[in-house]
Amino acid sequence: MKDEKTGRGFASDNNSGVHPEILSAIQKVNTGHEIAYGDDRYTQKVVLKMKKVFGDEAEIFFVFIGTAANVLGLSAVTQPYNAVITPDTSHIHVDECGAPEKFTGCKLLTVTAPDGKLTIDLIKEHMHGFGFEHHVQPRVISITQSTELGTVYTLDEIKTIADYAHEHDMYLHMDGARISNAVVALDTDFYSMTGGSGVDVLSFGGTKNGMMYGEAVVFFNNSLCGDFKYRRKQGMQLASKMRYIAAQFDAFLNNDLWRKNAIHANTMAGKLYQAVKDIDGVKVTRKPEANAVFAIVPEEIIPALQDEYFFYVWDEDTSEVRWMCSFDTTEEDIEQFASLLKKFTS
Amino acid sequence: MKDEKTGRGFASDNNSGVHPEILSAIQKVNTGHEIAYGDDRYTQKVVLKMKKVFGDEAEIFFVFIGTAANVLGLSAVTQPYNAVITPDTSHIHVDECGAPEKFTGCKLLTVTAPDGKLTIDLIKEHMHGFGFEHHVQPRVISITQSTELGTVYTLDEIKTIADYAHEHDMYLHMDGARISNAVVALDTDFYSMTGGSGVDVLSFGGTKNGMMYGEAVVFFNNSLCGDFKYRRKQGMQLASKMRYIAAQFDAFLNNDLWRKNAIHANTMAGKLYQAVKDIDGVKVTRKPEANAVFAIVPEEIIPALQDEYFFYVWDEDTSEVRWMCSFDTTEEDIEQFASLLKKFTS
Amino acid sequence: MKDEKTGRGFASDNNSGVHPEILSAIQKVNTGHEIAYGDDRYTQKVVLKMKKVFGDEAEIFFVFIGTAANVLGLSAVTQPYNAVITPDTSHIHVDECGAPEKFTGCKLLTVTAPDGKLTIDLIKEHMHGFGFEHHVQPRVISITQSTELGTVYTLDEIKTIADYAHEHDMYLHMDGARISNAVVALDTDFYSMTGGSGVDVLSFGGTKNGMMYGEAVVFFNNSLCGDFKYRRKQGMQLASKMRYIAAQFDAFLNNDLWRKNAIHANTMAGKLYQAVKDIDGVKVTRKPEANAVFAIVPEEIIPALQDEYFFYVWDEDTSEVRWMCSFDTTEEDIEQFASLLKKFTS
Amino acid sequence: MKDEKTGRGFASDNNSGVHPEILSAIQKVNTGHEIAYGDDRYTQKVVLKMKKVFGDEAEIFFVFIGTAANVLGLSAVTQPYNAVITPDTSHIHVDECGAPEKFTGCKLLTVTAPDGKLTIDLIKEHMHGFGFEHHVQPRVISITQSTELGTVYTLDEIKTIADYAHEHDMYLHMDGARISNAVVALDTDFYSMTGGSGVDVLSFGGTKNGMMYGEAVVFFNNSLCGDFKYRRKQGMQLASKMRYIAAQFDAFLNNDLWRKNAIHANTMAGKLYQAVKDIDGVKVTRKPEANAVFAIVPEEIIPALQDEYFFYVWDEDTSEVRWMCSFDTTEEDIEQFASLLKKFTS
Repeated sequence: MKDEKTGRGFASDNNSGVHPEILSAIQKVNTGHEIAYGDDRYTQKVVLKMKKVFGDEAEIFFVFIGTAANVLGLSAVTQPYNAVITPDTSHIHVDECGAPEKFTGCKLLTVTAPDGKLTIDLIKEHMHGFGFEHHVQPRVISITQSTELGTVYTLDEIKTIADYAHEHDMYLHMDGARISNAVVALDTDFYSMTGGSGVDVLSFGGTKNGMMYGEAVVFFNNSLCGDFKYRRKQGMQLASKMRYIAAQFDAFLNNDLWRKNAIHANTMAGKLYQAVKDIDGVKVTRKPEANAVFAIVPEEIIPALQDEYFFYVWDEDTSEVRWMCSFDTTEEDIEQFASLLKKFTS
Repeated sequence: MKDEKTGRGFASDNNSGVHPEILSAIQKVNTGHEIAYGDDRYTQKVVLKMKKVFGDEAEIFFVFIGTAANVLGLSAVTQPYNAVITPDTSHIHVDECGAPEKFTGCKLLTVTAPDGKLTIDLIKEHMHGFGFEHHVQPRVISITQSTELGTVYTLDEIKTIADYAHEHDMYLHMDGARISNAVVALDTDFYSMTGGSGVDVLSFGGTKNGMMYGEAVVFFNNSLCGDFKYRRKQGMQLASKMRYIAAQFDAFLNNDLWRKNAIHANTMAGKLYQAVKDIDGVKVTRKPEANAVFAIVPEEIIPALQDEYFFYVWDEDTSEVRWMCSFDTTEEDIEQFASLLKKFTS
Repeated sequence: MKDEKTGRGFASDNNSGVHPEILSAIQKVNTGHEIAYGDDRYTQKVVLKMKKVFGDEAEIFFVFIGTAANVLGLSAVTQPYNAVITPDTSHIHVDECGAPEKFTGCKLLTVTAPDGKLTIDLIKEHMHGFGFEHHVQPRVISITQSTELGTVYTLDEIKTIADYAHEHDMYLHMDGARISNAVVALDTDFYSMTGGSGVDVLSFGGTKNGMMYGEAVVFFNNSLCGDFKYRRKQGMQLASKMRYIAAQFDAFLNNDLWRKNAIHANTMAGKLYQAVKDIDGVKVTRKPEANAVFAIVPEEIIPALQDEYFFYVWDEDTSEVRWMCSFDTTEEDIEQFASLLKKFTS
Repeated sequence: MKDEKTGRGFASDNNSGVHPEILSAIQKVNTGHEIAYGDDRYTQKVVLKMKKVFGDEAEIFFVFIGTAANVLGLSAVTQPYNAVITPDTSHIHVDECGAPEKFTGCKLLTVTAPDGKLTIDLIKEHMHGFGFEHHVQPRVISITQSTELGTVYTLDEIKTIADYAHEHDMYLHMDGARISNAVVALDTDFYSMTGGSGVDVLSFGGTKNGMMYGEAVVFFNNSLCGDFKYRRKQGMQLASKMRYIAAQFDAFLNNDLWRKNAIHANTMAGKLYQAVKDIDGVKVTRKPEANAVFAIVPEEIIPALQDEYFFYVWDEDTSEVRWMCSFDTTEEDIEQFASLLKKFTS
């Protein structure tokens, strides 16, 4: 992952820039003074707008990034002796440099999850030792939607896990860094896939779908977050000029921008899949359900391919790579990349 | 502090918007794909530019906010059993909701500092117990420049503290949330007032002087930050689309924008001081050296005054208030506010 | 504090050995197998016995040392964004190497307390910023009884602070490392001075009064400690062979051993006070109320005096020293020490 | 694990009492005053004695319990963004209620280890992401000797792991809660199996082999522990009356008491194995190498068996149980227990 290049690519949906409508919204709120730290008119208006999306009982807090949304959301519903059950592919386990452990004190209990998705059977591996003080006490189940492997939980699957969590006096946390892609994939809406399916705490992401920065922590039960404002501040995530985050979410939700962007990204992934799946020497690992395509390609062609369109190797042992599509991926990108792939493998 | 209003005011320099040149710079980098997390072309270019400002040995890391810059900077040069000596008015002690303690584990050892400035004599109150395992071990002296009380350390004062720190195997940390205002006040330059005066770790702030978000942690000795990238990530401060922070710093440094903005803010504070200092019933607490004016005003007039121009009460017991000027404070603001003050106090 | 000697002395009440009745109790429980980690018969019996002392609602947890009792007790009633108000002479602030901050995440807010005792006026210095997310939220008032300066709160003083705490939705924590000495000084009983006076969480100490190791955290409201067993284990304070701690507390409470020991220590301090108070060149700083005598003595005689009877210098700047008496201090110790003091100062 | 009983049993080697020679040593040091916190004559003498065992370069620190020895030892060689690679059966992962994560901030990276023993191949599963700031950075490999499954690493196996660790700029930590049993099993000595085989940090345990309380953290390279005294104090593990821990270690090492106890425990485990291995319905899971026997027994007989000789179920899913022998297990215990087992299974 050291040999990184600039230019077009499939490295990640956060290598894209900012959608013009988002940028325009930022400019529009750049007028004079506003009280800092979220007590401005824009933030309050956008929070109300988001309550329309997530339900009146929902409480919404803006933070800077997805890692912070995850970690602070988890901190609100745990004590340091608790544990969080999560797949071993989850962002909170693999890609946050131990921030969950450092900030919450909790242990992450991982399972090997085919396709990055938890099931009750997998969760049960860690449902031991309740009341036994030598063991961490499982308190949260954390899922990612869409997952780090580009798969998507159905609403029923989410509900099943949520019910299981609640039966055991636990909470369901959803890392929604790519939530728009999942909503589009399921042809549902934000609420039905989150609070409506039993999710208790959500990291609501926008940066991977056209925003510049800013994520939201959404609590579906306001009894969970009476003190969250202190956790956010102590967690170094309270933006002074918060209106510029609010403005982005405003634009994100207006005119279904989030949906258009996600439909585009998912569609591009579908086209990429079609374009590469039958190439000799390329083995698509799983059918894409959102905006990611995973494939095993010959190890020796990877560097040359990355030179043209940068992407990341997912698993060095198996030579599996990940190609992410985003709101600004073009059909031309797909065609050129597929051509290159064909050329290099032939 | 609950009765917050929108509109023009002297509440804080972060109630201002974003300077147009900063916004314009953000727009300019919004072109296509860039590797995320700081490996983009813009970030690397701007870091080199900042090395020109702070010296070749300096290492620069972007984070989101000042609290994070302070806390992560301190974490790099401490172990949890260390202590940080700081005035009891410092932002790290008063306004960060315990983030330094939570994240570093360290104790803050505070002193009552007239005008918000440390002196060797004040520092000495806590220079005890070295080598004694029952006591936290002082390791960092932290000063704010310009201070939370609107005062400014001279270069000699900084050097004296830095020398004292180094003689005792300690580091000097500077919270530079309002560093531009101090540089302008002293008619010096960034390096002379920081690394050149012995500062080891600096929080370099821009948000209070016209930026949207983004601060930098600057280490003047690169042996201190070999592992800082991990601390930043674990500290939830690694921006994915970092080019938009880099672009802001680029514009901030270009054409001395930082200086123009700071000169303006300081000048406005000077004018405000002149306009209010002789009003009956108003007692300016200390002559402004940067962009803040502190004054004691009759308690009963504060609410009506806040209705027109919002500001914060600094000390409820003494009815001392703080008026901050910023890059977008206007002469009209000053005149109207002084008139109101005269009217209310007469 | 490096020039430490062995032999008789007034260094601290934990320089004494173990009272023979305590040791004998340890031997008596050394019979065969017992379930580890507190589920043994002895621990359960002694906990019931302590409930007789502290009230049926009280919950008692054994830990190893006083620092742990303090820190874990505080952790049970705080979140990391909270603060603990305490005198700047308190053990939790001065002598625990930052363990409270490291383990709880909380900030300690200190005040300069004459004679080591908090008052409402002193506490009020920090009763600001409630509901304001930039500030740590005061949640606990922590007092030491008897104090680190050898003074004792009256029951009324404790009740006044407790009422004040509870009116502000805060808790009262008592560090009772020398609780026996205070009970004896006030001629009261354990419950009246703790739960009966409004204390919520108590560190109940025995090591400084004849035990080998082991302290207890006592909660007077069992709603505060439903999860304390996890905090104790995660706090590395769950003893496997807990019966040996239980046995010590058993002996401590039997036949008023704690009282006899404390009466002796206090009496010896009184005699020491009488023996030294009129010596020329010696200025007793405050009349002893428990088992400590503080005095200013000529700096130059300290080393020679320490050679004979070791003790600690309390304040190097003023040449104030501390002489602690314990259950095994003898009248001969007092006489010889006073003679030496007279000789050295004459 | 709720249905715990008192009386003879095979629950754990810490259900035993204290060996008479240990208790006698405690009594012998109970004479008058000693400087607290380890500056007493006994502690210093015993530390020197242990240096004879572990090498002149070794540094030895007493703490109260094994969990603390592990956690503080790990804290000395890690930063919070590091990771510790360990089997998923390890005490630090399973039985310390998340203390390692809470105190060090580090993530534990676990592998499924047959027989509780790491191998290079297993370790390699986690040797990824070095230098990549999104990932925790592996810094320590932690093994338990003898393991939680009653198995023992050979000296060659330890050396191989140590070499691998050092080649990758990592440290080898050994949890030696049952170190005596392993030394006896391998017919070696303490040093050869630890520092002599490349171990960097050792938790040296005595409580499971006849001591009352007290463990030691041993560093084989004194550059690793220059600041450990602060970590121990802040970790709430600095005993005031430390002579009573020192005295125990003294007796433990005198006249090979540790060896006699461990030989006895291991021998009893061997006899237990012989006595039960051919009983119909009992399947010994693995040949005992130290003082533990693991076996699968019919689920329905467990409660009645526990009523007579208490022990723990290791794996509820498979009905695998653990029988620990200790220094005070008798041949009569073995015979009676085997008889019962035969009776219940027939």
